[in-house]
Amino acid sequence: VQVVWYTAMSMDGRIADARGRLDFLETIAGRDEALAEFPKFLSGVDGVLLGATTLRWLLDGGHGWPHDDLPTWLLSHDDGLLERVGATRASFRQTSGALAPVLDEIAAAGVSRLWIAGGGNVAAQALALDRIDEVIVTIAPTVLGAGPALFDGDTGPSRTFALEECRALAGNAARLRWVRR
Amino acid sequence: VQVVWYTAMSMDGRIADARGRLDFLETIAGRDEALAEFPKFLSGVDGVLLGATTLRWLLDGGHGWPHDDLPTWLLSHDDGLLERVGATRASFRQTSGALAPVLDEIAAAGVSRLWIAGGGNVAAQALALDRIDEVIVTIAPTVLGAGPALFDGDTGPSRTFALEECRALAGNAARLRWVRR
Repeated sequence: VQVVWYTAMSMDGRIADARGRLDFLETIAGRDEALAEFPKFLSGVDGVLLGATTLRWLLDGGHGWPHDDLPTWLLSHDDGLLERVGATRASFRQTSGALAPVLDEIAAAGVSRLWIAGGGNVAAQALALDRIDEVIVTIAPTVLGAGPALFDGDTGPSRTFALEECRALAGNAARLRWVRR
Repeated sequence: VQVVWYTAMSMDGRIADARGRLDFLETIAGRDEALAEFPKFLSGVDGVLLGATTLRWLLDGGHGWPHDDLPTWLLSHDDGLLERVGATRASFRQTSGALAPVLDEIAAAGVSRLWIAGGGNVAAQALALDRIDEVIVTIAPTVLGAGPALFDGDTGPSRTFALEECRALAGNAARLRWVRR
């Protein structure tokens, strides 16, 4: 399974502000145009992996799990989360163990392109296992100074990526895409 | 005085690793070509502002102060640092007060384009005062997971920049330049 970490961050590498909010994305002036890239990306993935913080943020905002048409794996010890998600169209599985066997399970389930939907700690765990194939980031034209980082925690030995894309999007946003070497 | 924060960072917005080292820059394959942009930048500035951590790192590495031909302002309470710098060709002044009057002093000294040479905390203080005119960042194709951030600490009210440059450099590095709106 190809693993992709796709997200947005501030100029200083924060994927949310210190209170976990995504308001900084509003600094992208042509936000709709810049974020229109997302459905294109989404149509190319067939599975999602996310952590408790990301899911909790969605649920607290009353969003539910917006991608319930995709097989989803939740990395969390919190048993109450699954109940809050409720019924989903595709499978929604919770696991609290190590990431390596989870990625094997995801591959065995037939997922070919997996989206890590958050957060930076899940991405860091995957990178520590050398299982990040692609990093796609939209950089908003603002600074946060604090907040969860794009990769948060021990990322293991240093790894070098190839820069495949570097271009300006609408509204002063930048799109960078790196792939595994 | 025009204030420019020019530096290099990892994909996840760290300007040094958790131990303060810059080894991550070696992941830029065509490092010499990518870093050749630096002298061009340097020839356009006529003053430097830096913090104690950045200077200490240079001195500990046996580098001395490599830009002693430029009038320099050091933000630090550590009186021993000035002694370690020794004789300089241009003026080298230490100050431990608030940043706003220091920037006024720099302007009064006739500096027209000031380089913030580090670190992220000095940049954060300047941004909190809305005194950052330009941010120029070279992104190396690697992840650090921890370490000092591009802007470190309270950056004040949210500000939006204009993205003026977004291009691939040699060796999988990316160059981004934002200017004040």
